[in-house]
Amino acid sequence: MPTPARRGTVTLVLGGARSGKSRFAEGLATATGLDLVYVATAQAFDDEMRERIARHRADRAGEGWRTVEAPLALAGVVAAESAPETALLVDCLTLWLTNVMLADLDVEREVDGLLAAIGAAQGPVVLVSNEVGYGIVPENALARAFRDHQGRLNQRVAAIADRVTLVAAGLPLDLKLPKEPTS
Amino acid sequence: MPTPARRGTVTLVLGGARSGKSRFAEGLATATGLDLVYVATAQAFDDEMRERIARHRADRAGEGWRTVEAPLALAGVVAAESAPETALLVDCLTLWLTNVMLADLDVEREVDGLLAAIGAAQGPVVLVSNEVGYGIVPENALARAFRDHQGRLNQRVAAIADRVTLVAAGLPLDLKLPKEPTS
Amino acid sequence: MPTPARRGTVTLVLGGARSGKSRFAEGLATATGLDLVYVATAQAFDDEMRERIARHRADRAGEGWRTVEAPLALAGVVAAESAPETALLVDCLTLWLTNVMLADLDVEREVDGLLAAIGAAQGPVVLVSNEVGYGIVPENALARAFRDHQGRLNQRVAAIADRVTLVAAGLPLDLKLPKEPTS
Repeated sequence: MPTPARRGTVTLVLGGARSGKSRFAEGLATATGLDLVYVATAQAFDDEMRERIARHRADRAGEGWRTVEAPLALAGVVAAESAPETALLVDCLTLWLTNVMLADLDVEREVDGLLAAIGAAQGPVVLVSNEVGYGIVPENALARAFRDHQGRLNQRVAAIADRVTLVAAGLPLDLKLPKEPTS
Repeated sequence: MPTPARRGTVTLVLGGARSGKSRFAEGLATATGLDLVYVATAQAFDDEMRERIARHRADRAGEGWRTVEAPLALAGVVAAESAPETALLVDCLTLWLTNVMLADLDVEREVDGLLAAIGAAQGPVVLVSNEVGYGIVPENALARAFRDHQGRLNQRVAAIADRVTLVAAGLPLDLKLPKEPTS
Repeated sequence: MPTPARRGTVTLVLGGARSGKSRFAEGLATATGLDLVYVATAQAFDDEMRERIARHRADRAGEGWRTVEAPLALAGVVAAESAPETALLVDCLTLWLTNVMLADLDVEREVDGLLAAIGAAQGPVVLVSNEVGYGIVPENALARAFRDHQGRLNQRVAAIADRVTLVAAGLPLDLKLPKEPTS
């Protein structure tokens, strides 16, 4: 990897389901004025998912996004697509984590790789992730494990992010802000 | 509908279950000093619900509220009861949405109607709604659909609201504030 | 109980599962510079729990904490351990409430006793609790009752606390701050 022209600003956008977090994250990426790459982690397992994915794509239609699929190889896609004149939007870490767990990969190792790729990004990276730990403890052991992994993943990404914003009902609430103005 | 004496201030109060959101919303309505109308959307399907409704009514007892039931016809009740000297408290949108879905009505159309009625309100309207999207994805398809509708409804009401406040452990956190002082 | 040298500062740290709330609360207690007592409410019912408890203890290892178990008799332990030169960390109210409900004790009476003990504490007390009401209504009646009790418990502790902080992705968001500087 060549010497980065500038290190990328990392933004984590957190929120619940249908909180408007993806829309807010898209706005952040678009506001950079850079080339836009949408890194899609969704994988369609059934008609409901296929419909959601299609709806999301339709929402972005004509807005100048190039879409790259990364249901599993997210670190590699971030490394390959990151560039000084490109804003990456990763939507979302929750579906990626689901895919990693369903594929029975080593979650900690995959997360380590992702964090390294984000840390080495040459342009801005906006990552969308769900808050999933604010309900009753799930009865299902896999759901509990997922909830734990998601919480730890969010903490780890938040720790290296320049900005962390929680979105509720479409409205942003900053949890962490950059010390100085960044792109 | 006659020319409104003044347009109503719209406040959305969001929170989890037992977060103190209804109590906070009641305080906002009471603080207007206007006549108080409590628009109740709850419908009792079983003893647990009947008990909750009775407890809520007891909490309001003797505090000067007139109660109007609106399990389904919420837009109509908001239009009919809204008046310059009346503060409306709608408690809550989550139960109303549940009723709309159980009655197999067209959710988008019902929400469109509600938003029009809120936008045309002649006095202040305070609406209470739940955040329900911060847990693990529900296994049940109806629960997933409900979660999606609730999230979108909250976003749409928040977009037209003058003030949006999240309540946690009885404590308010403003997500959106009016530009200028309002009633 | 002798006249307290000074009344204890009460801090409530709220958050979802794996939100980093315990780690944040530990930091608050450690920052007092006082003797540290960790009041553990966890009870191991199975291997998953035993593993979690062991992991938490390992996290605190060598950091100077004395651990006292209080799965049920929390009020008594707070009263017995509270001292002007000791910071108490209660981790967490959610597990304690679970234990109280599983033991079929009177929740309201137990909470009354806990609040009295916290109010009479002679040194700082930091309490960790979960937000569990931001998901879909649980189908299970016991889970619904738990959710209601947890929400009310959080509201009651928040009402007497000097500081209430919500932690998300390891980042604090203050919901209530002391009027004047406190220990």
